[in-house]
Amino acid sequence: MKLATLRDGSRDGRLIVVRRDGSTYVPADGIAPTLQAALDSWETTEPKLRELAARLERGEVQGRPVEVQKLAAPLPRAYEWVDGSAYLNHVRLVRKARGAEPPPTLETDPLIYQGGTSGLMGPTDDIRLADVAWGCDFESEVAVVLGDTPQGVRSEDAHRYVRLLMLVNDVSLRNLIPAELAKGFGFFQGKPASAFSPFAITPDELGPAWKEGRVHLKLRTHLNGQLVGDTDAGPEMHFSFFDLIQHIARTRSFTAGSILGSGTVSNEERARGISCLAERRMIETIDNGHPETQFLQYGDTVTIEMPGPDGVSLFGRINQKVVPA
Amino acid sequence: MKLATLRDGSRDGRLIVVRRDGSTYVPADGIAPTLQAALDSWETTEPKLRELAARLERGEVQGRPVEVQKLAAPLPRAYEWVDGSAYLNHVRLVRKARGAEPPPTLETDPLIYQGGTSGLMGPTDDIRLADVAWGCDFESEVAVVLGDTPQGVRSEDAHRYVRLLMLVNDVSLRNLIPAELAKGFGFFQGKPASAFSPFAITPDELGPAWKEGRVHLKLRTHLNGQLVGDTDAGPEMHFSFFDLIQHIARTRSFTAGSILGSGTVSNEERARGISCLAERRMIETIDNGHPETQFLQYGDTVTIEMPGPDGVSLFGRINQKVVPA
Repeated sequence: MKLATLRDGSRDGRLIVVRRDGSTYVPADGIAPTLQAALDSWETTEPKLRELAARLERGEVQGRPVEVQKLAAPLPRAYEWVDGSAYLNHVRLVRKARGAEPPPTLETDPLIYQGGTSGLMGPTDDIRLADVAWGCDFESEVAVVLGDTPQGVRSEDAHRYVRLLMLVNDVSLRNLIPAELAKGFGFFQGKPASAFSPFAITPDELGPAWKEGRVHLKLRTHLNGQLVGDTDAGPEMHFSFFDLIQHIARTRSFTAGSILGSGTVSNEERARGISCLAERRMIETIDNGHPETQFLQYGDTVTIEMPGPDGVSLFGRINQKVVPA
Repeated sequence: MKLATLRDGSRDGRLIVVRRDGSTYVPADGIAPTLQAALDSWETTEPKLRELAARLERGEVQGRPVEVQKLAAPLPRAYEWVDGSAYLNHVRLVRKARGAEPPPTLETDPLIYQGGTSGLMGPTDDIRLADVAWGCDFESEVAVVLGDTPQGVRSEDAHRYVRLLMLVNDVSLRNLIPAELAKGFGFFQGKPASAFSPFAITPDELGPAWKEGRVHLKLRTHLNGQLVGDTDAGPEMHFSFFDLIQHIARTRSFTAGSILGSGTVSNEERARGISCLAERRMIETIDNGHPETQFLQYGDTVTIEMPGPDGVSLFGRINQKVVPA
């Protein structure tokens, strides 16, 4: 099942059910007004939403054409946005770029940060950047939306709490980050609003590609129309989403609608490309002694997408342009 | 105006208006079902809530008795919980306790971290601690609730975005924090759910004590019935709430209902006592070479309260007991 949120002038938008091929939708009127409301009562709303999706699929209800620019983030504001950094190749490269060592517990203790949640960007929202000197970067990621998740849940039970998956552009301001992290309390100004894919999908939409808490598919990133990353989101995700859930739920619980990100999808094999510019700059530095690629400039466009085994874009396309704030 | 949230079995509870002396309340039915809903439409709800509060004050509507144990946090879940660390005496002591240096920008660049928001504790909720060895501590703080706050707002304009004030117990797990901060991404497991005061009050309730973005009143903390802190929340708040708002809004905006904390209220004068046990342990270490006070044990109780100039408890009392999870 594919869900999305139509902008309607309200803060949380209007929940819609989208056809599997992403072409048409029907409003979820009478089931749940918003995605948050659906997640709040998932046990009762999920079967009704699935029934509506099945009727749309079979052509029993008339769908309206999906216009991606009218979609907000599936959750335009959310109660939590927690982002992991589960691809160790990314951690190693970015720390090298900052002149920082990876922590000694890199392979046993997940890196995680708590992000801002109050103004999540829709898939085609402009990235409004006040100052190009901040070093704006994209980060292409996968995320899960949780149901009510109790404190102390173990990795082996964590699958029960995954309701939906999305793609993310975790926008980062690279030149603000070193000074911020040096203060010791983690990211804040260096992580402005993140953007989310048009569609949030249930795990079964991934078929066998959803395995042991990882998405075994390629995540494609284009910069100004050029393919820069065709990274495999599966095998190199060192900590699975289930591991990350166990980690974040160690000392507290999470309410339905909390979002958990994978961190930048990153592969050791260079030919796969990159899911953020910081990695490319580090590779250039390793090869040539200095970075050549600039961070994002006004007018630059970034697209992020994940084709399914049949070629259909599973989550729709994040497609953003950098503009002056 | 004093607002609160009555537990009613729903996720966000039911908004009520409380009499100035904290004795009785009336539901805000017909104005806004929840505090978040009121904040979402503050321009239209505030005058109605104020009118209802005035009628309750004058005895024109019949109030029902406030039972604090039936109150949830004013916002039982919130879109953001951002906590500063604006009292530099606290930063210096706690860093000393961790064997860490305060950052060189301590006096010019506010320390801030992004906290979890999905399960905020009510004023009398037990602190459910899975492991006493985690080193559970309280932190007594003041917080503001923001209205919609645009990116780039300046300190001098920030007063426009402060809707309400609350008290906070920012529960911390001291023994998990050093290893977590060493990873470089800030707090996560070390900061479980925070608890909030019974009442959220509008700034005018503070009268002249609300000055230049600081609350010039005493914050009283009791541990197991003994007064341990009678700290002044005003003059030693190095960065005012307005400074903190400018800092957090530099690279993004905030939605109505976002919560911003002051950090642990802390005074240089030792006779004022402490607002967290880490400070007391550090003072003991400075004086005697080692800490003597234990972190919180099962059965310990913590209360946090702020009396107004007339002696009335402005926010009601946070009153929590530590119990096994």
